[in-house]
Amino acid sequence: MEHPDYHYMKTALELAEKGAGRTSPNPMVGAVIVQDGQIIGRGWHERAGGPHAEVNAIADAGSRTRGATMYVTLEPCNHQGRTPPCTRAILEAGISRVVCAMTDPNPEVAGGGDRFLADCGIDVETGICEPEARRLNEFFIHYIQTRRPFVLLKCAATLDGKIATLTGDAKWVTGPAARARVHQMRHCCDAILVGINTVTADDPSLTTRLENSTGRDPVRVILDTQLSMPETAKMLSQQSNAPTMVAASENADPQKAARLEQQGAQILYVPEKQNRVDLDCLMAKLGQMNITSLLVEGGSRVAAAFLQNRLVDKICFFYAPKILGGDGMGICSGPGPQLMSSAISVTDMETEQIGDDLLIQGYIK
Amino acid sequence: MEHPDYHYMKTALELAEKGAGRTSPNPMVGAVIVQDGQIIGRGWHERAGGPHAEVNAIADAGSRTRGATMYVTLEPCNHQGRTPPCTRAILEAGISRVVCAMTDPNPEVAGGGDRFLADCGIDVETGICEPEARRLNEFFIHYIQTRRPFVLLKCAATLDGKIATLTGDAKWVTGPAARARVHQMRHCCDAILVGINTVTADDPSLTTRLENSTGRDPVRVILDTQLSMPETAKMLSQQSNAPTMVAASENADPQKAARLEQQGAQILYVPEKQNRVDLDCLMAKLGQMNITSLLVEGGSRVAAAFLQNRLVDKICFFYAPKILGGDGMGICSGPGPQLMSSAISVTDMETEQIGDDLLIQGYIK
Repeated sequence: MEHPDYHYMKTALELAEKGAGRTSPNPMVGAVIVQDGQIIGRGWHERAGGPHAEVNAIADAGSRTRGATMYVTLEPCNHQGRTPPCTRAILEAGISRVVCAMTDPNPEVAGGGDRFLADCGIDVETGICEPEARRLNEFFIHYIQTRRPFVLLKCAATLDGKIATLTGDAKWVTGPAARARVHQMRHCCDAILVGINTVTADDPSLTTRLENSTGRDPVRVILDTQLSMPETAKMLSQQSNAPTMVAASENADPQKAARLEQQGAQILYVPEKQNRVDLDCLMAKLGQMNITSLLVEGGSRVAAAFLQNRLVDKICFFYAPKILGGDGMGICSGPGPQLMSSAISVTDMETEQIGDDLLIQGYIK
Repeated sequence: MEHPDYHYMKTALELAEKGAGRTSPNPMVGAVIVQDGQIIGRGWHERAGGPHAEVNAIADAGSRTRGATMYVTLEPCNHQGRTPPCTRAILEAGISRVVCAMTDPNPEVAGGGDRFLADCGIDVETGICEPEARRLNEFFIHYIQTRRPFVLLKCAATLDGKIATLTGDAKWVTGPAARARVHQMRHCCDAILVGINTVTADDPSLTTRLENSTGRDPVRVILDTQLSMPETAKMLSQQSNAPTMVAASENADPQKAARLEQQGAQILYVPEKQNRVDLDCLMAKLGQMNITSLLVEGGSRVAAAFLQNRLVDKICFFYAPKILGGDGMGICSGPGPQLMSSAISVTDMETEQIGDDLLIQGYIK
């Protein structure tokens, strides 16, 4: 049997995940309080600006926290933010032991909470389920350390690597379960990005459509160097709780920009690099806007550009059990390397069956 | 706990597999004989022309077979072939119960052995581990019912579906474990096929190179409509226990044909269809030559041609944990369908991690 510390921390991780899609730019955090082998309090960070997980767990436990152990998926904060420091709440509750999955990854505050608690005589242990905790908050950890969004590259392809036929038909490559998963990913990401070709070809809404709950729409970012976005694009007129941003060259037509702004779009002016929006600058700009995660959904040229600029952190490639069997639109298109040894390595590759489709995820270092 | 019948049949299936690559055009068959809950005899069909599994198991059991149960992965034969009928050996051994995984799939002999044994008073049961037995002998079953080879389409690709860079570099896409698996596949297949472009680009040997044992080289079949095969191709001068066959148009240059034959090649003349070797005719021809299985190893155009002619029975696609990130040689090339709904369906998709690579296998109905 696993050590009870792992059991309780896994419960805390499950609680943390309930905040998925609602805590950005904060991390997801979960906490449980255990007294005499019984969980007496549960809490999680439910939304950005709301109380932290530790405070919610203490409130849930009521008056029984003296001498208890708290399991929390991230080192408690020790600074006054939008809410008072959690370390103080832990001390006031009389908790005698705190088990953390990981230290605060924010280079400006790391170690503060744990050290403060230890100095106050609390028994502090860190590193229980750390890999799971790091995976859970991979967006936040990347963002807090680089101030740029964590970039997920998503595609839905046939087994022979085609995302559409040559005529652009892509309805549907993958099945309903995979498409539902994509909407879950959209809900969890702060922003979504596609190229202007995808907009003109498909006129997508790029909203989050979950089956049983209300999703959060990601900020829509359209790569559109020359502002060729149609003013009639669906995403400009639809109901959505997120804006549509058009990333364009600083040299793009100001009149077209004004017309798009009148339709509700926001224009992000970005320097050009080789006649296209400089993606590196765009990432910095999105980071400044507190966008911690970006879901890149295509098409082929956009995927290739992000990969070639080494901006992709994680790939989420869905493969349908089908073969196009001839020419079509590939996952990536544009100039490729001369040598296979120049291909981009993917690490920690994992596969998951989703309905009839296969999801391969992995990381790019 | 599983029923003992399944346990013994699985042992018989494991024995059968020891004949892999050596029994064609016969099936792999394994047999165990059980007396009082003890396995007293084991046998398998070791090579085409050799004794059948049942006879080997009876010989292994010695004098203790009276009243025993035999588990055999395929219905015992009831006809005089290169060896006497196994049904007679079973009767003479005094075996009282015979459990078969599946009936003989040969439409000309099906049901004969089981019925004969039952008529002789033996308790016969069929269908234990039938799916596993059918999978084991999928080449044989297909061949005996269609008289054409079972076609496996193999490729090694990046996650974005590229088998080589645009310059043709493909060294290496997958790692050593996946490459070793391909040699195991070659050992198990009667023939291997590539297009002439692969020959001129890579000058491959297309032999079986196993690590710890002697492999059987598959018959090499080169698709080469116009006989542009170089007379200096490595596969014509190498040591091999299998011939090199060049499938060419009936209109190909007879002088070039004579020169290739002088180098040891065999020319297979095949009618043309749309200026290429008619693959359907070629499959019939290979079937007539007792080739029960064909491993199609590429390149892109050959893969597409086999898929479009609906000649592929199974796909074995290896994916390396890497992304080319731009244009390259795709898994399939040539005219593709207009609509995604025209893509070819793959059923019973299975994934397997092989070293760092992923193998996806599936069937095409």
